[in-house]
Amino acid sequence: MIEFPSADSTRLDSYVDRYAARTHGMTASEIRALFAVASRPEVVSLAGGMPNISGLPLDVVGSAISNLLQAKGEVALQYGSGQGDPVLREQICAVMRLEGIEAHPDDLVVTVGSQQAVDLVTRIFCDPGDVVLCEAPSYVGALGVFKAFQCEVVHVAMDAHGLVPEHLREAIAAVKAAGKRIKFLYTIPNFHNPAGVTLSAARRAEVLDIARAEDILILEDNPYGLLGFDSDPLPALRAHEAEGVIYLGSFSKTFSPGMRVGWALAPHAVREKLVLAQEAATLCPPSFSQMAISTYLHQHDWQGQIKQMREMYRERRDAMMTALADFMPASCSWNRPEGGFFVWLTLPPGIDGKAMLPRAVTARVAYVPGTAFFADGFGSNAIRLSFCYPPPERIREGVRRLAGVLEAEMELRTTFGATSLSSHRARSEYDAPSTDLS
Amino acid sequence: MIEFPSADSTRLDSYVDRYAARTHGMTASEIRALFAVASRPEVVSLAGGMPNISGLPLDVVGSAISNLLQAKGEVALQYGSGQGDPVLREQICAVMRLEGIEAHPDDLVVTVGSQQAVDLVTRIFCDPGDVVLCEAPSYVGALGVFKAFQCEVVHVAMDAHGLVPEHLREAIAAVKAAGKRIKFLYTIPNFHNPAGVTLSAARRAEVLDIARAEDILILEDNPYGLLGFDSDPLPALRAHEAEGVIYLGSFSKTFSPGMRVGWALAPHAVREKLVLAQEAATLCPPSFSQMAISTYLHQHDWQGQIKQMREMYRERRDAMMTALADFMPASCSWNRPEGGFFVWLTLPPGIDGKAMLPRAVTARVAYVPGTAFFADGFGSNAIRLSFCYPPPERIREGVRRLAGVLEAEMELRTTFGATSLSSHRARSEYDAPSTDLS
Repeated sequence: MIEFPSADSTRLDSYVDRYAARTHGMTASEIRALFAVASRPEVVSLAGGMPNISGLPLDVVGSAISNLLQAKGEVALQYGSGQGDPVLREQICAVMRLEGIEAHPDDLVVTVGSQQAVDLVTRIFCDPGDVVLCEAPSYVGALGVFKAFQCEVVHVAMDAHGLVPEHLREAIAAVKAAGKRIKFLYTIPNFHNPAGVTLSAARRAEVLDIARAEDILILEDNPYGLLGFDSDPLPALRAHEAEGVIYLGSFSKTFSPGMRVGWALAPHAVREKLVLAQEAATLCPPSFSQMAISTYLHQHDWQGQIKQMREMYRERRDAMMTALADFMPASCSWNRPEGGFFVWLTLPPGIDGKAMLPRAVTARVAYVPGTAFFADGFGSNAIRLSFCYPPPERIREGVRRLAGVLEAEMELRTTFGATSLSSHRARSEYDAPSTDLS
Repeated sequence: MIEFPSADSTRLDSYVDRYAARTHGMTASEIRALFAVASRPEVVSLAGGMPNISGLPLDVVGSAISNLLQAKGEVALQYGSGQGDPVLREQICAVMRLEGIEAHPDDLVVTVGSQQAVDLVTRIFCDPGDVVLCEAPSYVGALGVFKAFQCEVVHVAMDAHGLVPEHLREAIAAVKAAGKRIKFLYTIPNFHNPAGVTLSAARRAEVLDIARAEDILILEDNPYGLLGFDSDPLPALRAHEAEGVIYLGSFSKTFSPGMRVGWALAPHAVREKLVLAQEAATLCPPSFSQMAISTYLHQHDWQGQIKQMREMYRERRDAMMTALADFMPASCSWNRPEGGFFVWLTLPPGIDGKAMLPRAVTARVAYVPGTAFFADGFGSNAIRLSFCYPPPERIREGVRRLAGVLEAEMELRTTFGATSLSSHRARSEYDAPSTDLS
């Protein structure tokens, strides 16, 4: 049985009475404890969201950086603009054009990965107690930011076509009736993390109409948009609406996460606030990474590179789909993502994904329990499976192991009854988020 | 006459009613407006704090990065630890040993420049209204963070030996008497930015005694410690006290600011909170920059490189000292920094540094007005001069131009009297911070 590190380390902390109120909400995430465990080579990790960058042309990257240092070394190693490198910002506009966005480089701010963009947007908009609307489930890293800024997260159900407009309307009405302020709707319209679904074109129009009518700002987080397997990308929400959407993009999934370069495209006045927040946070984003990416984009067929990535990830998605169909018990359900990295798997009734995790890791397979993706304790009947990192045959082996663990769990339940198996039983038994992703 | 960009852009901002309370305190700093002006080639900028990196061996950096990509490209381009690269953290311990610090790599967290370390420390400790003690004057970038987190800054006077212990005691007593909470003392003990002074060894002991007796955490910011001109570095405050000090370091001044790699060394429980805050802010600091620096430190005589930098900066300090003695009116006073980048110049009575700046820039010399380094409007009778970036002959020319502007100001005052010259007159006339740095 695996011992997970305890998140409770405050007992030896002589500073415990001095932290800010916001700090008491900062606790180690479930994904954090997993990173240590899942990195053992014998474990098939279907847990992490690390992109597979083994196909990157290291020689091209090396020569791009070497050219950069030779031609502009003193600029690349120096402080840069708080808003980000002007040349890179023009190139980012070309990247966004692939999803129908027409933007001016001056409305962009470069961030330390798009994670920092979520952080800066939340920092400038959210007072403690403000409401952020999120999909159910939602990205664990964004939930961590909202928690750190003491926001109240209200989840809105999805189905196979993404966020459900009528649930969005209901959530807005309920929050307003409670006298609370909604600061924005945080949404991942393409190849959702963790749900794997994509907001349909019809739904995009509906969500935008609701946001306009209710005067709700949209924070559109789109790290996976260019990684669709089956068709060209749908136009972004930002492609239809410039004033009511802050759009977040990233080079982490289409080039390199180790560079930590993402961006926010925002209405002009908001962009000004974001630059001030960026200057307070870091003075400026790393010049060196930005100019390295800029040189790479200039010298390399980056669109061809992304096409290769799409094919590689599609093969892995297919391997996972086949393995799930071959091995999983009939009482499981899952979706077929059209891009990105993730599948959302609903477990057989009564099985708790978090309680099962130590047994799964003992059986040498890891995943992320669904509860990580809810701010409110829901999600115990689901898990997130990633197909991005392991090669196809390892994915198949991981799914086979996971199916074995599930069969054993179900058999134990049948033999001994539900009560003896998990301290989370009551929660998982009555845990019924209205999200239906299967 | 130069027109500075207006910081008031909220009149067109449809989001003005929706920002967090903290955002209303975010305004463009005086340094920000200056960057645009002072970057014109005809202006001698004694304003910016950019290190002069023209001596960096770009070929060594290039081959270090090329080796890195070849040997560990897939790691360097991938997500890394939220705490920072373990190998780099060991190397940072060796860097800190030069200032008498014995530390364990596990007590370090790598940050996006030490600016982000100030941000993360403030984020975990400070609620709105909490007090941060700062020197008078203090670093403008840190003051921006404290303002962004709605802290109250209380300045403590310095003299030629740094922070004055009796003023520190008085400030602590006054804040406590007012029923407010002091979260920490923010101090730059070596080659202060902007004051240029260094906290003497005797004062270090006294400040630590006061902090222990009053139970005040110290935030020791030390970007310039290895850039002393005249002697070996004094042991850091952290070298004497591990539990009551958070120490911040940076590679920005000793290698490259464009890499954005700094660090915080903290008591263990605080370090855990800092890592959680770092994960919320960025997921992880840039792997690529960290490993590039790690490879550079491993392959290059970095201490020899720093020695060259010290000599280069000493020559510039000397050029500035000579020029100030040759050109400045007798009613000016300044200090002789023993390291770092900055000289603090007290203006002749009645001259306002901020009001004079547009005239100085018209005369093709730039500096930072003293008010930028105070949270409370003081400092109008002083300015910060940087000797780090321009070559010695340009420094001399810049000081000559500045002296000319000052002479003209003084002559105007004599001819027409004080009232007609500046809207800031009343403030500068009665502006009497107790700091005496001359």
